[in-house]
Amino acid sequence: MFKPDIQVCFSPHSYPLFQEQNQVVVVVDVLRATSAICAGIANGVNSIMPVETIEEAKSYRQKGFVVAGERNGEVLEGFELGNSPFSFMEEKLKGKNIALTTTNGTKAIKSAYQAESIIIGAFVNLHSVTEHLLTLKKNVLVLCAGWKDKFNLEDTLFAGAVANELLSSGMFVTSCDSARAAILLYNHAKGNLESFLIDSSHRERLGKLNLQKDIEYCLTVNKLNVLPVLDKNGFIVNKTQQNNVLL
Amino acid sequence: MFKPDIQVCFSPHSYPLFQEQNQVVVVVDVLRATSAICAGIANGVNSIMPVETIEEAKSYRQKGFVVAGERNGEVLEGFELGNSPFSFMEEKLKGKNIALTTTNGTKAIKSAYQAESIIIGAFVNLHSVTEHLLTLKKNVLVLCAGWKDKFNLEDTLFAGAVANELLSSGMFVTSCDSARAAILLYNHAKGNLESFLIDSSHRERLGKLNLQKDIEYCLTVNKLNVLPVLDKNGFIVNKTQQNNVLL
Repeated sequence: MFKPDIQVCFSPHSYPLFQEQNQVVVVVDVLRATSAICAGIANGVNSIMPVETIEEAKSYRQKGFVVAGERNGEVLEGFELGNSPFSFMEEKLKGKNIALTTTNGTKAIKSAYQAESIIIGAFVNLHSVTEHLLTLKKNVLVLCAGWKDKFNLEDTLFAGAVANELLSSGMFVTSCDSARAAILLYNHAKGNLESFLIDSSHRERLGKLNLQKDIEYCLTVNKLNVLPVLDKNGFIVNKTQQNNVLL
Repeated sequence: MFKPDIQVCFSPHSYPLFQEQNQVVVVVDVLRATSAICAGIANGVNSIMPVETIEEAKSYRQKGFVVAGERNGEVLEGFELGNSPFSFMEEKLKGKNIALTTTNGTKAIKSAYQAESIIIGAFVNLHSVTEHLLTLKKNVLVLCAGWKDKFNLEDTLFAGAVANELLSSGMFVTSCDSARAAILLYNHAKGNLESFLIDSSHRERLGKLNLQKDIEYCLTVNKLNVLPVLDKNGFIVNKTQQNNVLL
């Protein structure tokens, strides 16, 4: 019997090495882009358009979008939102469309645009992601946003959590060393993700920006029952609304 | 007081992201190129020239070199040697010059050619490598050869062993997530590297080629007191002979 496989790519830079036909790509940027996207979609945001450049984000303002952007962890000047999950939970965003540009996360999403299917993952919606993948039964690649094209620990831990759950089901296989490494790291860290990440360089960087509350939120597992996916026009929408989004 | 740092790069593909001035690069391809190079230099081979292509390797034959080459784990047709460490221990190779091309290892060495200093590492000469690095007190990058530009476990474990020893000395620092991940994986695996790697895809690949004896050798820690380094002409020589090699 055919069993789909699960692979893990540690950075968008390496994505071309892993790219395959008919692959479902789960993009993750735990701190904080994909956690914020999950929070926004769960809050009832209509759609989120990931864009790479600041100028591109600004151009969406004229189309009625709320403009969100961050570079190196800080909100961009003149932008309504950065990438704090809490800012994506504001009541006034319900039903709105957002254009979002971030240091790593939106770049990762854009790099996988040719994939058959892209879903947005984070610890906050881990179960929604794995449940969907177990139903789809297609080859899966977890694409970590990393930090400026380098490996980072927090995205790798999420990848390990996904790979662990899929392999434990007995319905998936892997011959991917990075998936195996990610699982080992996740199993080491899962008891206390936050204290484990105290030693990660990303945590050190974000610590300087006083983001303790955001980090705690982003490391909370299964907080949201939501599955953001890319629709055929490149908008991130709620999976359950994928076929009836009005833009 | 200045403390040098230790970073780990999981594949030659990502090396440009880690490249810095005044950096010592330790290249590792545990299975089997750098293990074989250590075995050859310890055996008294005069020099080893790493080359990328099969044609380039052949061209060295006319200059009196022994030609060694492997692709996907198998000896190249018409070549005297592959990359089995045992073949590099043959008595007849003492004093000889070898041109070597392999799937991953020689590519990794060539990719770092611009580095100030390149040394060749493997589990068999782990202590010689770390002892040298502790004396040098310069920034260190362990460059893993990986498998066709992807992450692999065995090279990462070696990187973790090096990073662990340098940081334990208190003389080095790191803010590199991949170094931290490598240390965690090494500490998990160090009790029995071989059984740990039973699950690695590389081991599965090599298992098919009946290389049990080679694998056991390559995972033996500190078997050799030897430090192969690149000289200014691109030849790998014994560090102690670096200044008086006759070619």
